[in-house]
Amino acid sequence: MSPGPTSPTGSAAPGGTGAPAVTLDDVRDAARRLSGAAHRTPVLRSRTLDARTGTQTFLKCENFQRAGAFKFRGAYHALSHLTPEELAHGVVAYSSGNHAQAVALAARELGTRAVIVMPADTPRSKRDATAGYGAEIVTYDRYTEDRAAISGRIARERGLTLIPPYDHPHVIAGQGTTALELLEETGPLDALLVPVGGGGLMAGAATAATALTPGIRMVGVEPAAGDDTRRSLAAGHRVTVPVPRTIADGQAVETPGELTFAINRRLVDSVVLVTDDEIRAAMVFAFERLKIVVEPSGASALAALLAGHLDHPPARTGVIISGGNIGPDRFRELLG
Amino acid sequence: MSPGPTSPTGSAAPGGTGAPAVTLDDVRDAARRLSGAAHRTPVLRSRTLDARTGTQTFLKCENFQRAGAFKFRGAYHALSHLTPEELAHGVVAYSSGNHAQAVALAARELGTRAVIVMPADTPRSKRDATAGYGAEIVTYDRYTEDRAAISGRIARERGLTLIPPYDHPHVIAGQGTTALELLEETGPLDALLVPVGGGGLMAGAATAATALTPGIRMVGVEPAAGDDTRRSLAAGHRVTVPVPRTIADGQAVETPGELTFAINRRLVDSVVLVTDDEIRAAMVFAFERLKIVVEPSGASALAALLAGHLDHPPARTGVIISGGNIGPDRFRELLG
Repeated sequence: MSPGPTSPTGSAAPGGTGAPAVTLDDVRDAARRLSGAAHRTPVLRSRTLDARTGTQTFLKCENFQRAGAFKFRGAYHALSHLTPEELAHGVVAYSSGNHAQAVALAARELGTRAVIVMPADTPRSKRDATAGYGAEIVTYDRYTEDRAAISGRIARERGLTLIPPYDHPHVIAGQGTTALELLEETGPLDALLVPVGGGGLMAGAATAATALTPGIRMVGVEPAAGDDTRRSLAAGHRVTVPVPRTIADGQAVETPGELTFAINRRLVDSVVLVTDDEIRAAMVFAFERLKIVVEPSGASALAALLAGHLDHPPARTGVIISGGNIGPDRFRELLG
Repeated sequence: MSPGPTSPTGSAAPGGTGAPAVTLDDVRDAARRLSGAAHRTPVLRSRTLDARTGTQTFLKCENFQRAGAFKFRGAYHALSHLTPEELAHGVVAYSSGNHAQAVALAARELGTRAVIVMPADTPRSKRDATAGYGAEIVTYDRYTEDRAAISGRIARERGLTLIPPYDHPHVIAGQGTTALELLEETGPLDALLVPVGGGGLMAGAATAATALTPGIRMVGVEPAAGDDTRRSLAAGHRVTVPVPRTIADGQAVETPGELTFAINRRLVDSVVLVTDDEIRAAMVFAFERLKIVVEPSGASALAALLAGHLDHPPARTGVIISGGNIGPDRFRELLG
């Protein structure tokens, strides 16, 4: 039995002893809970992409997910495990990005309310989107205040449950449904490329994919400026990198999660890096050839494939397009 | 039996006497021929769109079709009816837009060659895309030369078969597979919004949809500056309008097709008009909320729905997103 959302490190020791904190059964359970709430997103193909990369490519398009990113899966799944009493009180999360909108929407869907802690300088479009789902926004000064401390205080004072962005077994199991759906649709794949930020999407996807298709090559993709998971895997323990400067804001993480790292250390074969320019090129490719809108973090796995960073491309490769939350103005600005 | 592509007006009198030139069986036959060649494009849903328009909306996304638009269906289907001898000689088409790429790709797929007649000032990206599918490009001066005459001469001199962009029963039947697939996936719809240029997509979609779902409301959408089909329906005969000035280049047609008009006069309930600004707003909505790239003509039916031009929105409405061939630069320029 996995613990409630207030115990973010899971029931198994993160060191790797004992039963895994998240199993294929947990992902299957998450899929049942998400049925009818989350979209079963389409898997796109492109002959141009296949020809250019030398591998049959299957794109799992989470940019079409509700609230625009895979984050809704984990957030909704975590909230679906709350007790009626916990739901009566509400939830709190800190994020300026996709997790904020995901928790806000999941809370609305489940009839509870969400407090989202955001930096005061968060772009208005992101604040508006989150508030549009009915969440209460609390701002803080990110140069002088600590968002985790603020969120913890709000949680205690108001009796709210904290929903972490990645380091939680229910969140991880929810994100794993991306790979479950993908493999149900495609059958066995030889490799799966997954964007890595805090590592929740990868931990969930790797849990599902390696159980369904033993031998599948799990390849993480990080921005070159934020290679904390790659360094941590090499070191054998969690390493902290300087605050990453990258257009891939969803992957600008300094340290892997404790639980996500314990899972990824066991299941991930390698992590490859992409530059911001490679990400931009992938966003343009997605726009021009695939006709889809992908945000920088969401394009990183595709960028790795297009830039030739997948060694010895196998016959069949899955790629998770993790999100599409970017407006036309920011898109224009990024592509200059 | 419908005639070969060199007799573009079909076997039934365009005036409307006799058997229809295109039937549901023709569309089903086209679907069989297209199976494995054309994509079965996804049908997207958006709760935001439903809430905003007051009708459950089903978007048939032909921007994900091969060569980026529904045009591939009609072109491939027409070519699939050619005799081995005709295929040995090749085909010719005139178009600066999506029909050019569609015929070029269909010709490559069927092992024949295509000559595409394009204005000399066609943007390089469109020429390159067409040439990229292996077609031979012949240019002409659109201020002093007549493309139909040039194409006819090339066809005669080289023994090529002319593939018209819309006014042909095989082309119309091919385009009709969009509605066939949509209704197979959604079940009965109350209304279907379809962009109208030459009228081939509408003629095919209306043939399939009204046969599958008697009583479905067929609503055409034209740019306000190019309302030739609306005027023609009102007049009861084909009317010519001045050269349309609109961003919806795929719908900048001066006169409806002869055969398409004969069909649409019988099956279309109404035509509504959209301004260029309404089209721009729909392109932005598609980008921001749907995460898809849609070209101006491709967005016109969605624009009509968003702008409130569908009177008495019914419970369930289908919308054809007809194409997505627009690059990031042109997108930026249009939305500037």
